[in-house]
Amino acid sequence: MKLASIRSACGTFRVNAPRAAGGRLSGLPRRCFPGAVSNNRITIRTASAAAGGGTSAKFSVKYGKRLEDEDFSEYDSSLGEIVHITKEELAALQRKTPKLQPLLAIVQAGDDYTVEINKKIAGKIGFNVTQVCLKKTSSEDEIIGELLKLNDDPKVSGVYLHLPPASLTSRVINTLNPEKDVDCITDMNMGRLVQGNLSRGFVPPLAGAVLSLLQKHDASLEGKTVLLVGEGPLKVALHCLIERNGMFVQSSHSNSNSLQSQVMHADALVLLGAESMEIPSTWVRPGAAIIRCEHNIGSSSRSGLGYLAAAYRAQNVVQSCSRWLQEQQYRPWHLHTLKLQPLNPVPSDIEISRAQTPKPIDQLAAEIGLLPEELEPYGRSKAKVRLSLLDRLHSQPDGKYILVAGITPTPLGEGKSTVTIGLVQAMSAHLKLNSFACLRQPSQGPTFGVKGGAAGGGYAQVIPMEEFNLHLTGDIHAITAANNLVAAAIDARMLHEATQSDKALFNRLVPSVNGVRKFSPIQISRLQGLGIHKTDPASLTPQEVSAFARLDLDPSKITWHRVVDTNDRFLRKITVGQASTEKGQTRETGFDIAVASEIMAILALSDNLGDMRGRLGRMVVGTSRSGKPVTAEDLGVSGAVAVLMKDAIKPTLMQTLEGTPVFVHAGPFANIAHGNSSVLADKLALKLVGQDGFVVTEAGFGADIGMEKFFNIKCRASGLKPNVVVLVATVRALKMHGGGPNVSAGAPLPREYIDENLSLVARGCRSNLRKQIQIAKLFGVPVVVALNAFRTDTPAEIDLVCQIAKECGASDAVSCQHWSQGGRGCLELAQAVKEAARQPTNFQFLYKTEMPIVEKIRTIAQKVYGADDIQVSPEVQRKIDYYNHQGYGSLPICMAKTHLSLSHMPDKKGAPTGFVLPIRDIRASIGAGFIYPLVGTMSTMPGLPTRPCFYDIDIDPVTEDIIGLF
Amino acid sequence: MKLASIRSACGTFRVNAPRAAGGRLSGLPRRCFPGAVSNNRITIRTASAAAGGGTSAKFSVKYGKRLEDEDFSEYDSSLGEIVHITKEELAALQRKTPKLQPLLAIVQAGDDYTVEINKKIAGKIGFNVTQVCLKKTSSEDEIIGELLKLNDDPKVSGVYLHLPPASLTSRVINTLNPEKDVDCITDMNMGRLVQGNLSRGFVPPLAGAVLSLLQKHDASLEGKTVLLVGEGPLKVALHCLIERNGMFVQSSHSNSNSLQSQVMHADALVLLGAESMEIPSTWVRPGAAIIRCEHNIGSSSRSGLGYLAAAYRAQNVVQSCSRWLQEQQYRPWHLHTLKLQPLNPVPSDIEISRAQTPKPIDQLAAEIGLLPEELEPYGRSKAKVRLSLLDRLHSQPDGKYILVAGITPTPLGEGKSTVTIGLVQAMSAHLKLNSFACLRQPSQGPTFGVKGGAAGGGYAQVIPMEEFNLHLTGDIHAITAANNLVAAAIDARMLHEATQSDKALFNRLVPSVNGVRKFSPIQISRLQGLGIHKTDPASLTPQEVSAFARLDLDPSKITWHRVVDTNDRFLRKITVGQASTEKGQTRETGFDIAVASEIMAILALSDNLGDMRGRLGRMVVGTSRSGKPVTAEDLGVSGAVAVLMKDAIKPTLMQTLEGTPVFVHAGPFANIAHGNSSVLADKLALKLVGQDGFVVTEAGFGADIGMEKFFNIKCRASGLKPNVVVLVATVRALKMHGGGPNVSAGAPLPREYIDENLSLVARGCRSNLRKQIQIAKLFGVPVVVALNAFRTDTPAEIDLVCQIAKECGASDAVSCQHWSQGGRGCLELAQAVKEAARQPTNFQFLYKTEMPIVEKIRTIAQKVYGADDIQVSPEVQRKIDYYNHQGYGSLPICMAKTHLSLSHMPDKKGAPTGFVLPIRDIRASIGAGFIYPLVGTMSTMPGLPTRPCFYDIDIDPVTEDIIGLF
Repeated sequence: MKLASIRSACGTFRVNAPRAAGGRLSGLPRRCFPGAVSNNRITIRTASAAAGGGTSAKFSVKYGKRLEDEDFSEYDSSLGEIVHITKEELAALQRKTPKLQPLLAIVQAGDDYTVEINKKIAGKIGFNVTQVCLKKTSSEDEIIGELLKLNDDPKVSGVYLHLPPASLTSRVINTLNPEKDVDCITDMNMGRLVQGNLSRGFVPPLAGAVLSLLQKHDASLEGKTVLLVGEGPLKVALHCLIERNGMFVQSSHSNSNSLQSQVMHADALVLLGAESMEIPSTWVRPGAAIIRCEHNIGSSSRSGLGYLAAAYRAQNVVQSCSRWLQEQQYRPWHLHTLKLQPLNPVPSDIEISRAQTPKPIDQLAAEIGLLPEELEPYGRSKAKVRLSLLDRLHSQPDGKYILVAGITPTPLGEGKSTVTIGLVQAMSAHLKLNSFACLRQPSQGPTFGVKGGAAGGGYAQVIPMEEFNLHLTGDIHAITAANNLVAAAIDARMLHEATQSDKALFNRLVPSVNGVRKFSPIQISRLQGLGIHKTDPASLTPQEVSAFARLDLDPSKITWHRVVDTNDRFLRKITVGQASTEKGQTRETGFDIAVASEIMAILALSDNLGDMRGRLGRMVVGTSRSGKPVTAEDLGVSGAVAVLMKDAIKPTLMQTLEGTPVFVHAGPFANIAHGNSSVLADKLALKLVGQDGFVVTEAGFGADIGMEKFFNIKCRASGLKPNVVVLVATVRALKMHGGGPNVSAGAPLPREYIDENLSLVARGCRSNLRKQIQIAKLFGVPVVVALNAFRTDTPAEIDLVCQIAKECGASDAVSCQHWSQGGRGCLELAQAVKEAARQPTNFQFLYKTEMPIVEKIRTIAQKVYGADDIQVSPEVQRKIDYYNHQGYGSLPICMAKTHLSLSHMPDKKGAPTGFVLPIRDIRASIGAGFIYPLVGTMSTMPGLPTRPCFYDIDIDPVTEDIIGLF
Repeated sequence: MKLASIRSACGTFRVNAPRAAGGRLSGLPRRCFPGAVSNNRITIRTASAAAGGGTSAKFSVKYGKRLEDEDFSEYDSSLGEIVHITKEELAALQRKTPKLQPLLAIVQAGDDYTVEINKKIAGKIGFNVTQVCLKKTSSEDEIIGELLKLNDDPKVSGVYLHLPPASLTSRVINTLNPEKDVDCITDMNMGRLVQGNLSRGFVPPLAGAVLSLLQKHDASLEGKTVLLVGEGPLKVALHCLIERNGMFVQSSHSNSNSLQSQVMHADALVLLGAESMEIPSTWVRPGAAIIRCEHNIGSSSRSGLGYLAAAYRAQNVVQSCSRWLQEQQYRPWHLHTLKLQPLNPVPSDIEISRAQTPKPIDQLAAEIGLLPEELEPYGRSKAKVRLSLLDRLHSQPDGKYILVAGITPTPLGEGKSTVTIGLVQAMSAHLKLNSFACLRQPSQGPTFGVKGGAAGGGYAQVIPMEEFNLHLTGDIHAITAANNLVAAAIDARMLHEATQSDKALFNRLVPSVNGVRKFSPIQISRLQGLGIHKTDPASLTPQEVSAFARLDLDPSKITWHRVVDTNDRFLRKITVGQASTEKGQTRETGFDIAVASEIMAILALSDNLGDMRGRLGRMVVGTSRSGKPVTAEDLGVSGAVAVLMKDAIKPTLMQTLEGTPVFVHAGPFANIAHGNSSVLADKLALKLVGQDGFVVTEAGFGADIGMEKFFNIKCRASGLKPNVVVLVATVRALKMHGGGPNVSAGAPLPREYIDENLSLVARGCRSNLRKQIQIAKLFGVPVVVALNAFRTDTPAEIDLVCQIAKECGASDAVSCQHWSQGGRGCLELAQAVKEAARQPTNFQFLYKTEMPIVEKIRTIAQKVYGADDIQVSPEVQRKIDYYNHQGYGSLPICMAKTHLSLSHMPDKKGAPTGFVLPIRDIRASIGAGFIYPLVGTMSTMPGLPTRPCFYDIDIDPVTEDIIGLF
């Protein structure tokens, strides 16, 4: 099969077809080819030397034969070929993506034959046409309104504006999305064509048709001269295309006095839009082709060229669809990375952040393959990403899933966030591997309390760091609003129940509206929970009315707290309801910091909107006087809570200092909750990076807590399997575990931490580091140790850590200098992770959820913490029995333990043994879906010190720069 | 002066100059014109019949004289003309806008003569050049990084990419913003040129130069033939331009076998990029011009054509700057309006809202003249607008300023918001007048409590209504966070002061960091407030240390409340600090609804970021034990509060159902605060609509409260003068004032309100309506009465209201049907307002701020409310004395009075007289800048009813549609 494809500058433009595949396209209505000239303004003629004299009107000979109605094989074969090849192209696409269905939208004013032709051709090829029928008098605004809808509709691959010329104003034409402009009428596509940038634009269908006819000419026209007579954009397009296909182009006009000599030298003539133009046949060289067509691009025509143009339009539709599909396939990103020029000494975080100009977030989104309609920008440097992405990339294989965890830290923290960010900077910006970091959103409270951001640090940061650390996209505010609506609903309900009879309550809860009384869906849900399967309010018995109308909450057993995203210690314990309007219904309760809300944990674990809605309904807010759990669904508030959370469920896209993508989403507490960023952010990122890409996500606290919960809670909820654990260590923390003196915030570091001390390092490695590696390997996941190098670390210390780490079972152990160097400082780690991700994994959970609660706790205590056993008080046992009774027994366990030791004793460093873990209390987050035993007291509301860091924070009213934030 | 301008399709493209203005441009380095051909690849020659034979290289005769180095007058005169005219163009622009300064950015790799030429020409014309010097080895990403900065920089009018061809990839070129692409190298601009769409693109400078030379040819070339020999985009551009300028174009190439005959027929030859191309002189017609130039657009050249191209580039720079300026001038908007097809009966608000697809917010922004960099989108249907707009439009005259107020309402509300929205829909979408509605952001609390949205209703709504009623762009959340940070700071400070010595406190407040101890700026501010003018912490005396370190807040005199945006009645009165960690420092306090925060009032009254920062610092949170006011500045928290409010200060842009613009910004309480949307939204809108436009803003409650405060507080703060008051009335409310029975929410309307009752209507008009009209006229502003017509109103009732309203002094009175018809139903009102706005106004405040507080209150009570006098208790008088003592005596007054009566007694309808207004309490919002006397008790925290409307609210997990919201 000989492919006679037309060359183009970029190689993606192919308008011709395998000649052998040609053939008669049956079903063409022959009546549309009347006499050679007459009404039919588009004809093709091939002149021969033997042809008779006179004007061209009498000169229509092909191989010595007149071109009659019946004889349009020239068209017929071209048409057959292009239809055939387009059909093949579509079939090839559909083999890969069976549901793929291109759609051509024809915007028309009145029906005519051209529309019919386009529909016929589409039918032949096998795609759909949708017709938008407008009045001939439609206003510019109305047409534009329709075009905007077609632009936004992902089902539409191409738009054909078949409207009267007066309607085709420049504003109308250029409203059309150039990616759907299959007729090449927009300024953008015309420019692309002229500049030879055809990887994105389209060849005008009529130009494609003319070109194809030139190519079909008996003798090859390559190197020959084609004369274009006429003017207008079609001529410009043809000029460029013909030239690019190896022919010489001459241009002239019908009144030129050199026309005759030009015609005489031409091997082919294309006459554009000059209906009355007559070329004497004596001028024409023997064998020269003459093509006559209208210059108006997109004009209709009851003619063969009209059919051929429709076929090329159809090919453009399929090509547009194919490009759209390609956009959605896995591909290595072509990221515009931001260059880092690290300074020494390293400036402050905010100075580094401000010195880098972030890319517009919509640019980053486009680079990583997000469609514009999947993005919801919040300002210019952050955007929410719609979950519809998951449907679109459903069949795309996931990337590799990397967890960053840490050894037991000092109170100063060991840099898990900076390693996470440095690692993706190295992978994306330097190794050119698609990679994504998934981070937790920090609480705003500590931002104004004790110094410390969460956007990374040094040359491994998320920018702009002030956006990251302040409101972000409002998710925590949404959680606060949702949480407190539940709280208000609880107290108001108790007040109303306390002050009304069953009947009054019922009448208010199920009021008669225009004489009709009915339950709302959420009330039906409560009725079913009560085992009352009725839908008519009038049919309830008095007992049922009472059971329905009274939640009968026990004020002493309300577990739901209000929240605020401020370090407000005075709200830890309060009495509410002291105004006279609340009629003495006072109650002791408290506020937590907003991220401690169960709704935050739910956000982090939800798999989709419906899942979140279900979890929100299952949240238990307290217990009734008869000992029944009362849920948010019972309060009738869970739908409203879901509405408040509708935007929060979408992860927020930001970027690193080097312009690589980051998701920020959810930030549940790492003790009373599981301390990991969201399942949804990880899932979106895994699809976006594609099969050869990497998603790096972070777990809170040390590996004994954050990683264990990541595996047993988050991965259980998501179904995702991790490929590698990166375990972050510092020489400082290892020395502490090796027996170094206390490290505390604010106090100067003891000398042991500044001078080389190999024995402390070795002891630290052989205790805590070894144990944390073993924990990761318990789950069957390879471990890479990342030593976050400080300026004071000596080469001998670094080598020692790496050596022992490998002895202890790490796949690899390397040091990293991302803080001072950015991604370049993490290259070795990136390579090590890439290698480790090639290993097969044997991921498994530590326990089955069906195990009894106590056994699950014991398993974690013994296998992860190294405890001899656990100690469960009778009070805790009583609560466990209650949970079992309520059917909560098979939930996973979320240990609330200090992160400063593997044990429950913060001062026991290294890898303590021989202890019994006391379970002091046990609680449940039923909506989030875990039971959390408390090992020690956990503060859920931080305080402000005497001099909070807000003293330094201000805004410059002129530059709008923020001052003093970190 | 003869203008030889070149015709273009759109008429805005002028590359030639008044010939008489020509002249020698001195200072041209002649050395740059070496021998006629040689290295100089760009020459112009005019052939004469007398010229000698041989190739063109030997053929350089002009009027019988050789074109020598010294003789390039042809260039010189063209160059002089274009430079002169461009200079004139710039001068004309600068006469209108003196500070205007175009800037050409040259992106270059290495310095060369071309850059010098461009700088020289810029210098001649009088604009600046900035050079971005890159390495020749710069990566695509680096170049793109620089281009993105130049795109975003509003100072840059044009960008000249003077880079090696290899660097000019399609990706690089098309990164350039086409509006700054003065070389016409982007696909978009090339397409515009081809399509003749030159109102936006640019003529390539080299093409402009060639054209100008053709135009300068002795004999006019109009109707003559120009032959282009060569290829590439420059040829395409020239082809289109020459044709559009009335010449015939022929195209050929150097190898064409018809070249000779084409040359012989041509009146001018342009040889493109064929350095070695030789045309025998015998071919050339006598008098024919020959122009030889490189085809590479933007190529450099040490030649005359290089100078000329630089001059055309400069003209493009000035043109770009002029367009930019024009974009910022007043112009009637070309709004793409959304068509309404009202249904009968009118569907629910959410159904109507959802049936309309809002325009993308960036499209609306562009339509009303916002620059992309002034917009911060939040999702796809709302965006914040940057305040830099006010600087940009500084010199633009304001539009007309319309206030919508109402008569004293029934508890059901009389539709001020719907009138506001209906009026702008009528003005913008139907009368095509630029107009803007400025609305308050509603509190989220009531959204889930008692049914009732604030986005308007029926066919006069802001869409999407769910976005409007939920988080919006997070302003109220920011206020909540800011307010509660202040609260946390108060209690934490009291705790720390109670538990530490002066010295310990001081050492913590002013810690030694790396051995250096210094005050933060906010601490210096406090010191100065204390009269301590020292900056060295060590120099403070113990008394000064104590005065500085101890705010000594009196716990019983803390006036600052916490806030939450939830209807949470149990927080009205609470006791905080009951946890053991707070060491017994319990205190009674309470929460208000977030919009009652003083920070909300400040947001609404601030004029700019610096003003807001100042007001936030002045907020008084309580009193010290020694009776001194303690401010947020004293707490050191006001800078952080300003940082939390940095985005909230920007108004949010949304749209009405008909696609017209709306600002939503701030929503302070209408009793304890002034109840008006923000000063900044109004100011931005007044600039955006321009001098013939209208801004319609709404005041809370009845005119006696909202309007009075609008005039006396808001207009005093803003300096703006209103043009018209629209007073909204309903037959229902007028009947109530005329003596009709009680109207209350939830209960069915009595018959009087459904059947025609002209006497009740007349009595209502002659009491309340008359009084409210009189109040508006007190301030010297014309009044138009808008009767918000209900289905039950009879024509006789409507006519009666309009008749009496006019008798009572209204400029006009009309009924409106916006609820059922949208803007079309408000056309009569729009016309009436337009008429009334033509009247001269005599706006004046009701009182001078220097009057004593009591006198100001008495003035309002007597003149506005119709009271005989006021009654001030000794306790209130004591507080007034305290305010006077603290220097707060000259603040305006913000009355906290019921809105249900002109008096303080909600059940006194009509226009009560003969009463004495009791002032029960008085408080101050020093940051917001008003004193608020309380007339009765004001609840600042709503509650939830037994069946809050959250019972009906839910989200469809599949469609993501919100269910049951209104």
